[in-house]
Amino acid sequence: MKNLRQLPFEDLGFAKVDHHRAVRHGMPEVILGQGKHPDQVAGIAQALLAKSSNLLLTRATAEMAARVSALAPETEYFPASGVVRVWRDKTLHGKGKIAAICAGTSDLPVLEEARLTAEVMGNNVEVIVDVGVAGIHRLLYQRERLMEARVAIVCAGMEGALPSVVGGLVGCPVIAVPTSVGYGASFNGLAALLGMLNSCSSNVTVVNIDNGFGAGYVASLINRL
Amino acid sequence: MKNLRQLPFEDLGFAKVDHHRAVRHGMPEVILGQGKHPDQVAGIAQALLAKSSNLLLTRATAEMAARVSALAPETEYFPASGVVRVWRDKTLHGKGKIAAICAGTSDLPVLEEARLTAEVMGNNVEVIVDVGVAGIHRLLYQRERLMEARVAIVCAGMEGALPSVVGGLVGCPVIAVPTSVGYGASFNGLAALLGMLNSCSSNVTVVNIDNGFGAGYVASLINRL
Amino acid sequence: MKNLRQLPFEDLGFAKVDHHRAVRHGMPEVILGQGKHPDQVAGIAQALLAKSSNLLLTRATAEMAARVSALAPETEYFPASGVVRVWRDKTLHGKGKIAAICAGTSDLPVLEEARLTAEVMGNNVEVIVDVGVAGIHRLLYQRERLMEARVAIVCAGMEGALPSVVGGLVGCPVIAVPTSVGYGASFNGLAALLGMLNSCSSNVTVVNIDNGFGAGYVASLINRL
Amino acid sequence: MKNLRQLPFEDLGFAKVDHHRAVRHGMPEVILGQGKHPDQVAGIAQALLAKSSNLLLTRATAEMAARVSALAPETEYFPASGVVRVWRDKTLHGKGKIAAICAGTSDLPVLEEARLTAEVMGNNVEVIVDVGVAGIHRLLYQRERLMEARVAIVCAGMEGALPSVVGGLVGCPVIAVPTSVGYGASFNGLAALLGMLNSCSSNVTVVNIDNGFGAGYVASLINRL
Amino acid sequence: MKNLRQLPFEDLGFAKVDHHRAVRHGMPEVILGQGKHPDQVAGIAQALLAKSSNLLLTRATAEMAARVSALAPETEYFPASGVVRVWRDKTLHGKGKIAAICAGTSDLPVLEEARLTAEVMGNNVEVIVDVGVAGIHRLLYQRERLMEARVAIVCAGMEGALPSVVGGLVGCPVIAVPTSVGYGASFNGLAALLGMLNSCSSNVTVVNIDNGFGAGYVASLINRL
Amino acid sequence: MKNLRQLPFEDLGFAKVDHHRAVRHGMPEVILGQGKHPDQVAGIAQALLAKSSNLLLTRATAEMAARVSALAPETEYFPASGVVRVWRDKTLHGKGKIAAICAGTSDLPVLEEARLTAEVMGNNVEVIVDVGVAGIHRLLYQRERLMEARVAIVCAGMEGALPSVVGGLVGCPVIAVPTSVGYGASFNGLAALLGMLNSCSSNVTVVNIDNGFGAGYVASLINRL
Amino acid sequence: MKNLRQLPFEDLGFAKVDHHRAVRHGMPEVILGQGKHPDQVAGIAQALLAKSSNLLLTRATAEMAARVSALAPETEYFPASGVVRVWRDKTLHGKGKIAAICAGTSDLPVLEEARLTAEVMGNNVEVIVDVGVAGIHRLLYQRERLMEARVAIVCAGMEGALPSVVGGLVGCPVIAVPTSVGYGASFNGLAALLGMLNSCSSNVTVVNIDNGFGAGYVASLINRL
Amino acid sequence: MKNLRQLPFEDLGFAKVDHHRAVRHGMPEVILGQGKHPDQVAGIAQALLAKSSNLLLTRATAEMAARVSALAPETEYFPASGVVRVWRDKTLHGKGKIAAICAGTSDLPVLEEARLTAEVMGNNVEVIVDVGVAGIHRLLYQRERLMEARVAIVCAGMEGALPSVVGGLVGCPVIAVPTSVGYGASFNGLAALLGMLNSCSSNVTVVNIDNGFGAGYVASLINRL
Repeated sequence: MKNLRQLPFEDLGFAKVDHHRAVRHGMPEVILGQGKHPDQVAGIAQALLAKSSNLLLTRATAEMAARVSALAPETEYFPASGVVRVWRDKTLHGKGKIAAICAGTSDLPVLEEARLTAEVMGNNVEVIVDVGVAGIHRLLYQRERLMEARVAIVCAGMEGALPSVVGGLVGCPVIAVPTSVGYGASFNGLAALLGMLNSCSSNVTVVNIDNGFGAGYVASLINRL
Repeated sequence: MKNLRQLPFEDLGFAKVDHHRAVRHGMPEVILGQGKHPDQVAGIAQALLAKSSNLLLTRATAEMAARVSALAPETEYFPASGVVRVWRDKTLHGKGKIAAICAGTSDLPVLEEARLTAEVMGNNVEVIVDVGVAGIHRLLYQRERLMEARVAIVCAGMEGALPSVVGGLVGCPVIAVPTSVGYGASFNGLAALLGMLNSCSSNVTVVNIDNGFGAGYVASLINRL
Repeated sequence: MKNLRQLPFEDLGFAKVDHHRAVRHGMPEVILGQGKHPDQVAGIAQALLAKSSNLLLTRATAEMAARVSALAPETEYFPASGVVRVWRDKTLHGKGKIAAICAGTSDLPVLEEARLTAEVMGNNVEVIVDVGVAGIHRLLYQRERLMEARVAIVCAGMEGALPSVVGGLVGCPVIAVPTSVGYGASFNGLAALLGMLNSCSSNVTVVNIDNGFGAGYVASLINRL
Repeated sequence: MKNLRQLPFEDLGFAKVDHHRAVRHGMPEVILGQGKHPDQVAGIAQALLAKSSNLLLTRATAEMAARVSALAPETEYFPASGVVRVWRDKTLHGKGKIAAICAGTSDLPVLEEARLTAEVMGNNVEVIVDVGVAGIHRLLYQRERLMEARVAIVCAGMEGALPSVVGGLVGCPVIAVPTSVGYGASFNGLAALLGMLNSCSSNVTVVNIDNGFGAGYVASLINRL
Repeated sequence: MKNLRQLPFEDLGFAKVDHHRAVRHGMPEVILGQGKHPDQVAGIAQALLAKSSNLLLTRATAEMAARVSALAPETEYFPASGVVRVWRDKTLHGKGKIAAICAGTSDLPVLEEARLTAEVMGNNVEVIVDVGVAGIHRLLYQRERLMEARVAIVCAGMEGALPSVVGGLVGCPVIAVPTSVGYGASFNGLAALLGMLNSCSSNVTVVNIDNGFGAGYVASLINRL
Repeated sequence: MKNLRQLPFEDLGFAKVDHHRAVRHGMPEVILGQGKHPDQVAGIAQALLAKSSNLLLTRATAEMAARVSALAPETEYFPASGVVRVWRDKTLHGKGKIAAICAGTSDLPVLEEARLTAEVMGNNVEVIVDVGVAGIHRLLYQRERLMEARVAIVCAGMEGALPSVVGGLVGCPVIAVPTSVGYGASFNGLAALLGMLNSCSSNVTVVNIDNGFGAGYVASLINRL
Repeated sequence: MKNLRQLPFEDLGFAKVDHHRAVRHGMPEVILGQGKHPDQVAGIAQALLAKSSNLLLTRATAEMAARVSALAPETEYFPASGVVRVWRDKTLHGKGKIAAICAGTSDLPVLEEARLTAEVMGNNVEVIVDVGVAGIHRLLYQRERLMEARVAIVCAGMEGALPSVVGGLVGCPVIAVPTSVGYGASFNGLAALLGMLNSCSSNVTVVNIDNGFGAGYVASLINRL
Repeated sequence: MKNLRQLPFEDLGFAKVDHHRAVRHGMPEVILGQGKHPDQVAGIAQALLAKSSNLLLTRATAEMAARVSALAPETEYFPASGVVRVWRDKTLHGKGKIAAICAGTSDLPVLEEARLTAEVMGNNVEVIVDVGVAGIHRLLYQRERLMEARVAIVCAGMEGALPSVVGGLVGCPVIAVPTSVGYGASFNGLAALLGMLNSCSSNVTVVNIDNGFGAGYVASLINRL
C-alpha cells in the first residue's frame, strides 16, 4: 500500500462510501439509518451493493427498508430492531460460536441487532433469552451452552448486572451492551452503562447504550481470530 | 434443596416464566408490560394463570389489558396507573395495616400502583392522600391513622420531603417512592429521589422513581413478618 | 399523647436532643459525627447517656471517640468504619437473624457500620463477606445461611449487582447499600446506587451511598415485627 | 444621575472597588475572600474602610482576618464560617425580625454567615437551631417565634426539606439556603438544592449552596421595605 | 390558635383543600393543573370559589379552562402561559410597583405567568420585554422604570445573565426565573438556572425553571411588607 | 457616539429590534424562530427588512417561512436546517475562504445552517462532507482544500473527534460545532461537546450543540479581519 | 463439572480467594489494592502465591509492594502505575502481538498498567507512545506496527479521539481506555469515556476510566483465541 | 508537501516532539506540565529550545520551572497561573490589539495564562480587570478600550455572564473562558461553561474551563489574519 490518501472511496456528494473498509475489516461499510434521508440511504445502499453481496442497514424506517428492497429482492426487514439486511453470501468466517444473551424480554430488539450483525458477518450465533440475575437458576441452567462460546454478547437494561455474572462463569471475552430498557433512575440506559463499566468481572468490555450492532461487529472480529 | 439449577421455570422462547418465585416470595412472577409486545404479555399471562389464581401486570396499555381480560373475566384494568389485576384469591397474608400515603393529587397513579400490588399480595391498605409538607396540619390530622401502620409507603414528587416527615412521626419502616411529578429542576423525579436518599429520618429506604409496584411488594413482604 | 409540640427534647443551644425518639423508634437518637465539632459531639453524647444505656455515634474521628470514652468507659471505637458504640444493654429485640453481606473486601467498613448498628439495636447479625457476583459460586455456597435471614443487608460498590442476585435467591426484604468503592465511572458510588435503584429483584430497597447505619437501622425495625 | 459610566469606583489595579454600591444597596461592597490573595483582600479592605464604618469579608482565612485586624482593631473573626466583620455602625435598618433557622448542628456555619451578614446590615436576627423535619415537634415548638418574622432564612443540607415545612407554617417570604452537609447522594449539596427549587411551598426562593451571605443580604433588603 | 392540627381544610377525597392558606399567606390556595385530571381541577376550583372571590390555576389545558369557566363566567384563559384566572376582587395589596422583566420574546409565557399571579394578588406590575444582555443599551434605556420598583422579577433562558445585570442596577430584591428557552447545552433551562444561582449580584434569589408563578407569588409577599 | 443608552432600537411591544447591530457587527439582527409565534417572527422580519437588504431566520417552521416569503419574494427556505434567508445584497466581505466540514451525512443540516449564515454575511464557503475520523484517508484526501481556508468550521456528532484532527492539520482557527447526531451515551450531543472542549488541538474553540449559525457568524467575523 | 457450588475457593475471613479463576480464565485472581488494608493485601497475596507462579496487584501503595516483596523476592513495583508484579512463569500464551498505544505522555501510567497485565498473562506487547490526533502524522508513521497487531489497546484522555482513528486504520478489535488526564470539562475522564462509547469506528469497545488492567486482561483473552 | 507521514518529529521515547507545528501554526509546541514528570518536562523543553527561541510551559510546578531555568536563563515563572515562559524572540505578529478581560479578581490567574500566551506569540495585549456584570458601569467605563480590540478574550467564573455583555458591545470575535471560580452550584466552572455556550451574543465561542492558554492561542491566530 502506497499512501493512505489513495485508499478508494466513492463520493456521492452527501456521503463518501468507503469501499476499502471491506478490505480492512472484512465487512463492507454498514449504514446507520438514523438521521439520514431515505434518498441518502438508498444512494449509499446502491453504491455498496454494486460491489458487495451483503448489506447491513441499522435503525431503519419501513420506508428505508422498502427503498433497499427495491434494489435487492433478497432484502429482509426486522421491524423490532429496525435492521435491514441483504444476506446473499453466507460463508462462515467465525471459528466458533458466539453466545448472544439478554436479561429480559424487553431487551430482545437490541439482541436481534447484535445477532443479525454477527450472522451477516459469517458467524453461528447461539441465542439465550430472559436469564436476568433475579432468577439466577435460569442462567445457570444454560451454563453448558455458555461455556461453548468463543465470545459472548450480553444485553441488559435496568441495573445491567448480567454481564458481570456471565463474565464470572465463562473464560472468554464478554461484550456488554447496556440497553435503554427501564424507567426512572435508569435514565435511558445510563444506570446499565455505568454498571457494566464498573463490572467486577475482568473480561468485560462495553459498547454504547442499545448498540447491538457494535457488539455483533466486534464479536465477529474476535471470532475470526 | 438439591440444586439451584433444577428450580422450575417454563420457557416460552421469548421469556422464561419463573413459577418457583411463588415459592420463594409467596407471590407469582409479576409482568412489567413496558417494552413488551401484547403477544408476549398475553403469552406470559396465560402461562402464569395456568398455575396461579392471581396475576399482576404493571405499566400496561389498554390493548394488553384487553388481552388479559380475554384470558380471565375477573380482570380489572386501572388506566391511571396502567395496572391490570386478576384478584381471585383474596386471602389476607399481612399481619397489620400498610399505610399508603401521597403528597399531592398528581401522585395518585403511583400510589394506586402501590396499593393494588399490596392488596393482591394480601394486605389491608390504608390510603392517605394530599398531605404534602406545605400544609403540615393536614398530615398531623392523620397522625393516629399513621401510627397504626406496621409499614408505610410514602409517594411524593417535587422536593420529596414527605417521607422524612412521616418517618419522624412513626416508628415503623417507611418505603419512599419518588414520583416524576414536577417540572424544571425536578428532572423527572431526580430531585425527589435524591431528597429521599438523603433523608434525615433513619427509618426510610427508597425505591426507583414511580416504582409504586416495588414499594407495595416490599411492604407486603415486611407485613408478613 | 396530647400534642405533638409537647414531645420532650432537650435544648443544648447548638442541638436539640430528641429523647422521645427512643419511644417512637425504640432506639435513642444516633449522632452523626460528620460536620460536628468534638465539643458538640461530647455534649450530645452526655445528654443521651444520661437517659440511655446505649449510644451510637457514626462517622467519628479518633478525637470524638476519646471524648465519648471519657464519658463511658465501655466505649468501643471501630476506626475502619468510624463508629463509636456504647453497648451496655444487650437485650435482643430482633425476632430472627439479619444477614449482612458484602461484595468485596473493600466494602467491609460499610458492612461494619451496618452490623454495629443492628447489634446495638438488639439483633443477631450473620456476616457474609466477599461474595461478589464475578464468582457466583462463592455466593451460592452461602445459600443456606442466606435463606435463614428474616431480612438481608447487601453492601456493594462498583456495579452494585449483588443485591439483585441475593434478592432473587431469598424471599425476605433486602436492603441494598451502595458503597463508594470503585474508581472512574463509579463516580463515588453513583453507579452502584443507580444499579440498585433499578434492580430487577422486586424485594430490594435502597439507602444512601455508604449508609451502612441506615441499612442496619431499618433492618432492625423490620426484624422486630 | 447623568450617566451610568460616571458612577464612582476606585481602581486598585487588581480590583475595581465599587463605592457606589452603598448608595444603590445601602451596603458597602462585600469582599469574597475565596480565590483572592491576602494582599488583595487587605488592599480592598483598606479602600472600603476609608469610606465606610462597616466591613464584611466572607470565606476568609485566618491570615486574611489578621490583615484586616491590622487595619481596624474592632475586627471580629468567626472561624467556623470564615467571616470577618467590622461592625462599628450598628444602626438598625430592618423594620422587623429576621428568623434564621437551620435543620441540624452541622448547618451552623452557614447559618452563622447569614446571621452576621444580616446583623451588619442592621437587623435583629432570631436564631432557631436544629429543628430538622425528622423531629417535627421541635420545629412546631418554635412556631410563635417563626410567626413573628418578617422574612425567614432556612438553611438545610441532606434532603433540604425544612424550607418547605417552614414555608407552609409562615406567611412571609422564605429564603432557602441549601448546605453541603451530607454525604453520598447529597452530592455536596445538590440534593438539598434541587429539593428547595422544587419546594411545594410557594413562598420559597433559593440561593446557591452554602451561600449564607446571599440569604442574609436579600433578607436584609426585604426587611427594610 | 390552639392546635395546628385543627386548622381548617376540606377533604375532597383526591385532594385536601387548604382554606386556611388564605389566612396565612393572604392568598387562596393556587391550583397546579399539571398532572391532574380535569375533574379533579374542577372539583378543587369549585371548593375554592365557594370561599374566595379570586382563583388562580396554572399549567392548565383548554379543557380545564372550560371547566372553570363553567363555574365562574369571569374566568380568563391565557393559552401562551396556560394560566386560568378568576379576578373578581381587584383590591391592591402591594405598596409599590413590581417590575417584571424578560430577556427575550420567547420568555414571554413565563413572564405572563408571573404577571398574572402578581396582579391577582393585588399588585401593579410594570412589564419590560426583550432587554437581553447582548444589547445592553436596551436595558439601560429602561433604567428609570427599573429604579422605581420595590421588587423585580427577571425571566431569562439561555445563559440566564439578565438577573445579574439587573441586580447590579437596582437596590431592591431581584427574583430570578430561569426559563427553558434555548437548545443544546441549555439542557432545558439548567444552564440558566446554574447561572442565576451563581449570580455575582448579591440581591438575587432564584426559583425553579419556568416557575413564573412562584416568582409572582414571592414578589407579592415582599411588596406587601 | 455619546451614550450607549441612545443607541437605536425599535420597540414592537413583544420585541425590541436592534437596528444598531448592523453597525456594530456588520450584520442585521438575526431572528431565532424557535419559541416565537409566527406573528412575532413576521413582525420582526418586517421591521428588519425595512432597513436591510438581507435577512436570516433560523429554526423556522414552514409557516414562518411562508410569512417571510409574503414579505419578500426572494425568500429561500431550507427545510433540513430550518433556515429562511433573504439574500439580496451578495457583496463579498470575507477576505478568504471559509472551510465548512462535517463528519457524517447526518450532520448536514447543521453544516447547512453554518454555510447559509456565512454566505449571507458575504463569504465564499468551501464545503467538505462525510470525512469522519473512522476513515481518515477521506479527510487526508481533502488536505489541500483544507489548507486554503482562513478559518474552518467543523461539525461532528457522536464522539466529536473531527475538530481535533482538522485542527492538527491546519494552522487557522477552527470553530467546532458539536451536533446532536448519535444515540445512547451521546446524550443529545453532550459527548461531542465535551470532546471538543477538551480538544488537544490548541486552535479549536467551541459553540453550542447544533449551533451552526453561531459558527458561521464567528467565522464570518474572523474572515473579515 | 458437578456443581457450581463446589468450585474451590479459600476463605480468609475478610476475603474469599478464587483459585478456580485460573482454570476459567487462565489467570489467577488479580488483587485490586485500592480500598484494602496492607494486611489484607498480604494475606491474599500469600494465598495466591501458594498456588501460582505469577501475581498481579494493581493500585498498590509502596507499603503493599513491600509486603508482597517480603513474600516473593522477584516482586517488581512500578510506582507510576501502582502495579506490583511477580512474573516467574513467562510462558507465552498469546498467538500474536498486542499493540498498546497512548495519546500523550500523561497517559503513560495507564498504558503501563495495561502492558504489565498483558505481559504477565503471556503476551508480546508493542508499545506506541504520544501519537495523539492533533499531530496525526505521528500516528500514521506507526501504521505498519499498528497493522501487525491482533488486538489493540488505546489509552487517551481529554477528548479521547485516538481509538476512533486507530479503529479506522486497523481491522482488529480495539479496546479503548479513557484516562482521567485533562482538566475542566474533562470531568476526570468522563469526556474521554463518552467519546469512546460514541466512537464511529465499529471495532471499538470500552473499559472504565483509567482501567488499564481490564484492557490488558481482555486483550490477553482475545490474543489467545 | 509530499506525504503527511514524513512530517518531522523527534522521538524522546516518552514523547514525540512535533517540530513541524511551528510551521503549521507559527508557534512551537507548547508543553502542558500537568500529569508529566519534571524529567519529562525538562526533556521536552530541551528538545524544543534546541530549535526555537521561545518556549511556553503551562500548569507547571516550581520544580518544573527550575528545570527549565537551568536550560535557559531568560526563563520567567508566574506562580499564580503556573506558566513558565522563555521569551527571547519578541517579534510582533499580531496586526492589532487583543483585549484580555476578566470579571473578578479571582479570575486573574486564568487571565494571566491567556495574556502570557498571546504575548509570547507576538501580540499586544490590553488587560481589563474586575469588570463583572454586577457593576456594569465599570465595564462601560472601559468601552473605548474594548472597541479598539481586533479580538477579545473574556474570562469569568460564577455565572459567566461577562462574555455575553462584552459580545454585545463589540463587533469583533470574543473568546470566552469559563473559570472554576465560585462554589456550590458553580460545580467547578460548569455553570460558567454552560452559560457561555448558551450566550445570546452571536460572536462568542468558548474554550475549556480555565483554559486561558487556548484562548490566548486562538486569539493570536485570529490577530495574525
